[in-house]
Amino acid sequence: MGIREDELVRKIGASLRQGRGVSPQVLLGAGDDAALFRPQPGYELVLTCDWFLEGTHFLRDKNPPDSVGWKCLARAVSDVAAMGGIPRCFLLSLAIPSSYSGRWLDEFLTGLRRASRKFQCVLAGGDTTRSNKTLINVTVGGEVRRGRAVQRSGARPGDVVFVSGRLGEAELGLQILKRIKRGANSTDSRQKKHLYPEPRIALGRWLAERRLASSMMDVSDGLSTDLSRLCAASGVGARINAANIPAPPVSSHGGLRAIDPLQLALHGGDDYELLFTVRPNRAKSFPRSLGGVPLTPIGVITSKKQIVLVNADGDESRLESKGWDPFRDPC
Amino acid sequence: MGIREDELVRKIGASLRQGRGVSPQVLLGAGDDAALFRPQPGYELVLTCDWFLEGTHFLRDKNPPDSVGWKCLARAVSDVAAMGGIPRCFLLSLAIPSSYSGRWLDEFLTGLRRASRKFQCVLAGGDTTRSNKTLINVTVGGEVRRGRAVQRSGARPGDVVFVSGRLGEAELGLQILKRIKRGANSTDSRQKKHLYPEPRIALGRWLAERRLASSMMDVSDGLSTDLSRLCAASGVGARINAANIPAPPVSSHGGLRAIDPLQLALHGGDDYELLFTVRPNRAKSFPRSLGGVPLTPIGVITSKKQIVLVNADGDESRLESKGWDPFRDPC
Repeated sequence: MGIREDELVRKIGASLRQGRGVSPQVLLGAGDDAALFRPQPGYELVLTCDWFLEGTHFLRDKNPPDSVGWKCLARAVSDVAAMGGIPRCFLLSLAIPSSYSGRWLDEFLTGLRRASRKFQCVLAGGDTTRSNKTLINVTVGGEVRRGRAVQRSGARPGDVVFVSGRLGEAELGLQILKRIKRGANSTDSRQKKHLYPEPRIALGRWLAERRLASSMMDVSDGLSTDLSRLCAASGVGARINAANIPAPPVSSHGGLRAIDPLQLALHGGDDYELLFTVRPNRAKSFPRSLGGVPLTPIGVITSKKQIVLVNADGDESRLESKGWDPFRDPC
Repeated sequence: MGIREDELVRKIGASLRQGRGVSPQVLLGAGDDAALFRPQPGYELVLTCDWFLEGTHFLRDKNPPDSVGWKCLARAVSDVAAMGGIPRCFLLSLAIPSSYSGRWLDEFLTGLRRASRKFQCVLAGGDTTRSNKTLINVTVGGEVRRGRAVQRSGARPGDVVFVSGRLGEAELGLQILKRIKRGANSTDSRQKKHLYPEPRIALGRWLAERRLASSMMDVSDGLSTDLSRLCAASGVGARINAANIPAPPVSSHGGLRAIDPLQLALHGGDDYELLFTVRPNRAKSFPRSLGGVPLTPIGVITSKKQIVLVNADGDESRLESKGWDPFRDPC
């Protein structure tokens, strides 16, 4: 039984080796002590890492292995996109039970390879070991034009708060996955958004290179939690109009009747959409979509350091952070 | 009970914030979606990551929390040193039980901070989550002068094989730790080598910048395993003289009598010494130490793709890889 570590490393390397599309910045990939990376002249390196743990971030019986492969990379790439960076290479730290070294690993690598090609982000190294549960950590190295990275701390009172895409759709997909007995159906857009999220690389880059966003982050733990982080980093608050938040349509049949779309959109995690602010003079004529991705103004930054939700009747309430916190909410 | 993720991130950031010694290359540290790093002109980026898992790489009751903090960074820094690179910044991915967020975390961060200062490698970001066991993954970003990184693949027949320091000492320290009932004693050099290893940063850099090493890697899983990896990457073999391998002295009292120093030196892991090859014309006058660290020639690279061990009587045998493999050897 079992696989040796060197065989596992070879299997990963063989699966992820890409004849075309290998970044010219990655000089030395998997197989040595470390990777070598040379950013283009005039660019800085963007560096991020992300946990993806069985039982905390995904469920063994609900996430097909290829979605685990796709999503572990997509999550980390999203952090690079949220700086306005271009993903280039990744390091895969993978710990699996010996019994996972066959079919599970093959399917995992298929999903990871698809994501790697889609995001043009190549394997450059990593570390493997044995574990009773599947543990994944992905580091992504990317590039951003010098001085153009968009941080969380740049929002100013009067800036307009935008989100891309639709919020709460991934959480709705998770709720559906938890309710159904059969396997995942990736033609269902909500399940697909949970299992195979698409980080907003092109949008983040466009916002950064044209200096359109004054602050930016990705929405991974839910709007209520992530907006409060952005506001804290910028030393500001926000007023958000509930009616403007792009929530998912929830069908009234099946077991989903009790789900409130606004609550999903406010607190649901895993969307990997971008949350960004735009100076008021630019916001007026701001495009309402880019490459088919909706860009929706949902509120305004305020100097008062609290986040206020205004409902359709004009009633105001404090928006509390109820997004995902691993120390409070097991998967 | 419990700690929220944002509090944990703040605690880590506050502990690791360093008034002095912050690398000028790290433009944006922990607290945003990703870190920003700008290598010096004429330098390339070295990127590596390393698992450090409770039960696989360390034992809860044998490794003091501050040694877990020190060693998780030291291990990853060693991979940068093994390329001839200079460590600059690291990302900490930490998953802990809620009950570890008090004293354990404080002591862990004390060890990590000491290592961070010692290796001049600053915290630039990371990811935190909850887990039943302590899971750590560390990414290190470093720099190396363009074209000077030393890879595993450069060894040629006739090159002399060197190792730094003493091999097997960390394994001996682990054997002692497993035998004693009282806590670790870090004034014992063998226990210290296991708990607080010192990666050979200055040596690696010296070898790389002066182009003295034709190939290099660190010895983390044991000489027999790591030498076979270096030889495989270079498409060569090696003849090693057992009598020349710098093994640790094993005292004949206590429960250590049965331990063979040569076996420790051949197969013991966790030493984080450097294994490197030197062209024959340079090897003759090669220094026997650098900065107090012994540099010992232990054999020669051969074209025949096998690793042969020559004992003191001149008898030859194949050296099999019996170093540490997480898929074979639980901690």
